[in-house]
This record gives sequence, C-alpha cells and structure tokens, in this order.
Amino acid sequence: MESKYSPQTLCIIGLGLIGGSIACAARKNLSCQIIAIDEDQSSLASAKQLGIIDDFHSPRCTVPHHADCVIIATPVGAVQSIFTYIKPNWNPNTLYTDVGSTKSSVLAAATQVFSEVPTNFIGGHPIAGSEQSGVMAARDDLFLHKQVLLTPLATTDPKFIQRLRSFWQQLGSKVDVIPAAKHDSILAACSHLPHLLAFVLTDLLGQSTERQLMFKYAGAGFHDFTRIAASDPTMWRDICLANKQELLAALRQLQGNLAQMEQMLAQGESELIAQTFSRSQLIRQRLSTQTTKPN
Amino acid sequence: MESKYSPQTLCIIGLGLIGGSIACAARKNLSCQIIAIDEDQSSLASAKQLGIIDDFHSPRCTVPHHADCVIIATPVGAVQSIFTYIKPNWNPNTLYTDVGSTKSSVLAAATQVFSEVPTNFIGGHPIAGSEQSGVMAARDDLFLHKQVLLTPLATTDPKFIQRLRSFWQQLGSKVDVIPAAKHDSILAACSHLPHLLAFVLTDLLGQSTERQLMFKYAGAGFHDFTRIAASDPTMWRDICLANKQELLAALRQLQGNLAQMEQMLAQGESELIAQTFSRSQLIRQRLSTQTTKPN
Repeated sequence: MESKYSPQTLCIIGLGLIGGSIACAARKNLSCQIIAIDEDQSSLASAKQLGIIDDFHSPRCTVPHHADCVIIATPVGAVQSIFTYIKPNWNPNTLYTDVGSTKSSVLAAATQVFSEVPTNFIGGHPIAGSEQSGVMAARDDLFLHKQVLLTPLATTDPKFIQRLRSFWQQLGSKVDVIPAAKHDSILAACSHLPHLLAFVLTDLLGQSTERQLMFKYAGAGFHDFTRIAASDPTMWRDICLANKQELLAALRQLQGNLAQMEQMLAQGESELIAQTFSRSQLIRQRLSTQTTKPN
Repeated sequence: MESKYSPQTLCIIGLGLIGGSIACAARKNLSCQIIAIDEDQSSLASAKQLGIIDDFHSPRCTVPHHADCVIIATPVGAVQSIFTYIKPNWNPNTLYTDVGSTKSSVLAAATQVFSEVPTNFIGGHPIAGSEQSGVMAARDDLFLHKQVLLTPLATTDPKFIQRLRSFWQQLGSKVDVIPAAKHDSILAACSHLPHLLAFVLTDLLGQSTERQLMFKYAGAGFHDFTRIAASDPTMWRDICLANKQELLAALRQLQGNLAQMEQMLAQGESELIAQTFSRSQLIRQRLSTQTTKPN
C-alpha cells in the first residue's frame, strides 16, 4: 500500500471556486499550511478571515520557497504567464500541478516557458465545478466522489505522480491517469461542446424580440439545459480557445448531425427521427442508472 | 369574481404522465368522477387500483356522454385520430381541451375533422413535465405554480374559456391566453429546440468509439444538459413534426449562430467569444434570480 501524502505547505495560485474549494477540502482532510496568491487582495483577505487560508501573498511577491506543493488554479489562459512568474524560484523538490479543463495547452505552455515540461509538474483536471464562481462559492466537498484526471508524461518523476494521486484521493476524489491529447478530445465532446451550445442557445434567445415570453414560458428542461450558460465567461473563453482544435472537430461533427436532423425534419422522416430520439433516450437513461449524478 | 368550475365527470383520453397527473391533481383539488380511456388496459387497471381514476374504458367504447369535461392527453400526433374517435358523440355542452406542446397542429386537426374548430374546444398546454413518462410517474403537484397556456379562437364560447381557466387554476397553475401561432414560435425556441439539441448531442456521443470514457468523465453540466434526452421519443417526435416549420426556423437560426461561433473559434476571436459568453451569463443569471426554477 502506498503511503499517504500531505504537503507541509500548500500554495494555491488563483483563489476562485476551484482553488478555494481545494483550500477548504485540504483544511478538512489534511494537515498543512495553506497560502494563496491572487490579484484580488480583498477576496484573499476575506478567505483568510474565514479561515479558508492561513496566509496570502500579492502576485508581486514570489511563491514562497518552502511551499512543497503548488497548485495553479487560474483560468487556463493565464497558465503560461503563471509559469513565467514562478520559474525564477522553481523548486525541484516541490510538486507542481494545475486544475485546468484543457491539458495539451498547459503542457505546451510549460514547454514554452521551461523548454521541456519539468519532471515535477503534472497536469491535472478535477471534473467538478459549478455555474457559480469565486472563492465565496467554495465548498469542502466539491471534489468528493468526483473524477480527477492526471496527465503525466513518460518523463514525469513517478514519486510526484504518486503524491498528487494521494493528495486528490484524500480530498475524496477518484483519480485516473490519461494522456493529455485523449483527455482533450474526450472533454471537448462531453464538456466543452455542451457549454458552447448552452452559451450560443441562451444568447440566441436573448437576442430575440420575443425573449420575455420565451423565458417566461421556458420549462424545467430549458432551465437545466442552460444552467451551464451562467458559468464564468472568461474561464470558458480560455477553455474553448485552449482546446480549439478538438472543440472545432466536435462542433463540426455536431453541425453535421444537426444538418441531418434538419433534413429529416424538413422531409418529415418520422421513423428516422424516432430512431434517433430512442437511441438518445436509451443512452441517457442508462447513464442515469449507472452513475450517481455529479453535482 | 368569477365562480369556480369543477366538472362532474372528467374524462381523460391518454393516461400517461400528464393525463395521470391531471387525474391526481383533480382528485386532490376538485370533487369529480374521473374516467380514463387508454389503449394500455393494464396501466388503467393499476391506476384504478391506486385510486387515481374511478373507472376506465377501452378505446373501442365511446366517450361516456355524461362526461362534461374531456381532456385529450395523448402525444400530439394522435390528436386527429382522437377527434375522429370522439366526433360521433360530440356533446355541445361539454368542455373539450388538450394538453399538447404544439397548438396550431391541434387546431388544424380539429378543422380537418369538424370542418371548423368547435366553439367548445380550447387548445391547452401545461408547461410541466418530466423526463419520466407513464402514469406511474404521475404526481398531484405536477402543475403547481406552473404556467398553462390556452389558445382559444375568436369563435370560442367564452364560458368554456372561463371554465378551463378555473379548472387549471384550481390545480394550482398560472393561466395565460395566447394565440396558437405565437405559442408555437415561442415554444419552438425555448422548449422544442433544446430538446432536439439534447437528443442530437447525446446520440452523437453515443455513436463515438470513445463513448465509455466520454460518459465516465462527463460532469454535472453534461448531466443537466442532456437530462431531457431521456424524454419520451414518440411524444417528442410528434412535437417536432407537428411544429416543424417553427422548429426548422429556430434550428436554422441556431445553425447560423453556431457557424458564426465556429468562425470565431477558428480565428481565435477572443474578444467576440467572451462577449457572447458574457451576454449569455447575464441572461441566464437574471433568469435564475427572476424565477423559481420549475421542476
């Protein structure tokens, strides 16, 4: 059995919903000092007052050298500049990771800054979140029973992979290792594309002259369907651009299937439409019975 | 103040989720005999045993002449054949209505069968439901605080409009009157299109060779987004075909906006993407604060 790992000093860069929830969950499940770095000094001060973190630094300061675990929890578009920021004090004995929803872009950013991905950096992605954002929405159970995907390289030092796996497991998460490219193509289809669709559909209705009645008469289906359109726009803009190729591929496939459906509708292809809907129903019902709904 | 209306004998044709929930809600809030007609004799027998209905008839029998309120609660594709079935015993003193999600098609079906829409028929649409189906999913609070839309014509007898309004209000619903064509264009955008998208997206992922990982790593957003893809395929096939013109118009608008988004992504138009997402977030957040989420 592998030993459990807890950092002595955890440094979280970017204290939003995810960074804040890591702080809360680490506070609950581990015993470590928790330091945060963020541009928003007032929310850092509130977080300290609430006991979510022990201390905080301004981004003008350097990452404290004694931090033995550093988690980058900014929007993915900011990761490269964070690498540049932490490079001068890079500690070969520290575990570095991130929580971004795209992984190839993060590895590319690391390569850009360090020439090659450091052996003590591991891309990570906790599949957990909410349409809410900001540290005030942080919860210590956000990662409980949730999937965390790690994307180490062949060159990554195994002891850091083991530490990061143990870290997330102690926050209650299920951990899988997956190649970054595969992560990105799968998440493009099951996460990034649905978010894009929810944003585009909500915007479409919002531009309509009948929007007031549309929203008044929208039922529960619409509310669930578009809940994710309330998500943080900067974060999702970054994700979509960082995973542009995979997202475009998924979007174009969907556009092809929508064009087929348009044809079926226009031609009144009752049987074909029913077959498509029946396949979806079967898939979706199986999904509901197989998994507990994540929250 | 208008007097409250309760039928003496309520006849529900089609005892699924909606018909069954009307029976349960009428049982709770009104005092009337409740009769159901359905092809599925075993579920009728179960419903009678559970006390949801008082009696039932096979579709080979006629609608009992003493029923003073008849509600057609079949999928919309069956409404015309139901009109044909009930025409021989049409009672000018009875209130007739339906619960279909499309209204112009129902009026067209009535015109087809009766030459013109009878003055005692009013199209109705309770905006309530669930991805579940069948009478065993029926709930007496399904219509509580929900919107019901009525689409009477200029020729409709006002006393029947008043009765139907009172009926739904007593089941706890909010009632609005709206022209059928307007109903159909609004619901195409805020209900039929989202359902179509959820079906098509779920089917797309289900066809992928990576579907197992896609569903394993799908987060809460995907689950909410596709919940409605578990809805009854026959009912939704009928709705989509019955409201084909309006749905096609909405789908084509969305396809145009998706093509724009594809362009923005391909060209890395960071600012434009962020603007679209921010507009959606604002709309969706406002929607959450203005309304209690329907269930």
